[in-house]
Amino acid sequence: MKTGLYLIPTTLGSFDTVNQVLPDNNNQITHQIKFFIVEQIRTARRFLKKINHPVEIDDMTFYELNKHTDKNMISHYLDAAKEGESLGLISEAGTPCVADPGSVIVRMAHERGIDVFPLVGPNSIILSLMASGFNGQSFAFNGYLPLDKGQRAKKIQQLEALAYRNNQTQIFIETPYRNSVLLDALITHCKPSTMICVASNLTLDDQYVKAMSRTQWAKEKVALKKKPTIFLVSKP
Amino acid sequence: MKTGLYLIPTTLGSFDTVNQVLPDNNNQITHQIKFFIVEQIRTARRFLKKINHPVEIDDMTFYELNKHTDKNMISHYLDAAKEGESLGLISEAGTPCVADPGSVIVRMAHERGIDVFPLVGPNSIILSLMASGFNGQSFAFNGYLPLDKGQRAKKIQQLEALAYRNNQTQIFIETPYRNSVLLDALITHCKPSTMICVASNLTLDDQYVKAMSRTQWAKEKVALKKKPTIFLVSKP
Repeated sequence: MKTGLYLIPTTLGSFDTVNQVLPDNNNQITHQIKFFIVEQIRTARRFLKKINHPVEIDDMTFYELNKHTDKNMISHYLDAAKEGESLGLISEAGTPCVADPGSVIVRMAHERGIDVFPLVGPNSIILSLMASGFNGQSFAFNGYLPLDKGQRAKKIQQLEALAYRNNQTQIFIETPYRNSVLLDALITHCKPSTMICVASNLTLDDQYVKAMSRTQWAKEKVALKKKPTIFLVSKP
Repeated sequence: MKTGLYLIPTTLGSFDTVNQVLPDNNNQITHQIKFFIVEQIRTARRFLKKINHPVEIDDMTFYELNKHTDKNMISHYLDAAKEGESLGLISEAGTPCVADPGSVIVRMAHERGIDVFPLVGPNSIILSLMASGFNGQSFAFNGYLPLDKGQRAKKIQQLEALAYRNNQTQIFIETPYRNSVLLDALITHCKPSTMICVASNLTLDDQYVKAMSRTQWAKEKVALKKKPTIFLVSKP
């Protein structure tokens, strides 16, 4: 195995699906790593246990990277690479560095000439784009929309305009408990024939994916509460 | 297994890496499917053989979907779903419906109330984004840039402006034999401190990933010819 920084995906939702959504090869690589940069140590430990990491948890080193992390601490996180050790960057859910804070570590790796190896795993943005039937030759992920009602309405209309003008699928997310509020806002502010796709709990048994026009959504009843959901908007 | 349209990823590059980049579960699902919509029948057959599909190739049904396909034929492609059969959509490389023509089939599935199940697999856009260290909370995939020199220069500057204004990572591709021409154009037209990432042959043994400023790229020698490559541009 080449030495470097490995970007290690986890599952979406419960770790019970590790064997369903992650290639065996990821485990073989991860089993050889003892230094990990993680969003939450507790979650990462549970994940490593689930994939039967052969090293005792106490013999591993964990560095935490989340919004509470002191930015001055980060500069030491990759020091093990100097000793020829590989490191693993693990996300709370899905692929690291996409819609999460991991990219700062990857940037540091490039600056220090440490090789970076992204491993394959579930990414809810790409899975939802595949499942939407919307244009996959041009698309944009926009993260969260503004919380303020007026600003959110404006942003929705801006993104809708982009979807039409550039035939570019517009993708965004919301904190799960506000999913229904966002869907209502899309129904209120999009044009009648604009296509909206809602994709919840991807890769899980109760996956929900539906793509239809705003007019059709207005007649739909759907319970999105607390379910990780991706929203996509497209021209008809 | 639920009945529906399954979106089945293949490898990037040689099919020898099927066990490295695809979850076992994909095979278990694919082994139960006998109807496939594919870009090239020959490639799809090789893939199904590689994953040890238990059904004889002659007992499977293949529908071709590529730029030569008569659009009037497509409306029959999902008919097997009426008989309770599942179908599989397979791409030439990586995940279907992203940077390939598959989405038209998914759209048809939604119109007919057929459930759509995206499976996990390697997607070079997401892998390159992870590996770049660039912003993964906002990004856009733009497909191919214009061929015409003047228009391409203009497009590069437009995308660079977007990267700065919205802190949105801009991603694009080129036909492999023109990779070096595109990199030269980026070096010529981007601002000195603009960050450029070049990611070739992801998931393969000779993977190449480098992210640095335009100024640093100007001093770099790199052979990208014929290698599938993703280009990413970010503000510093």
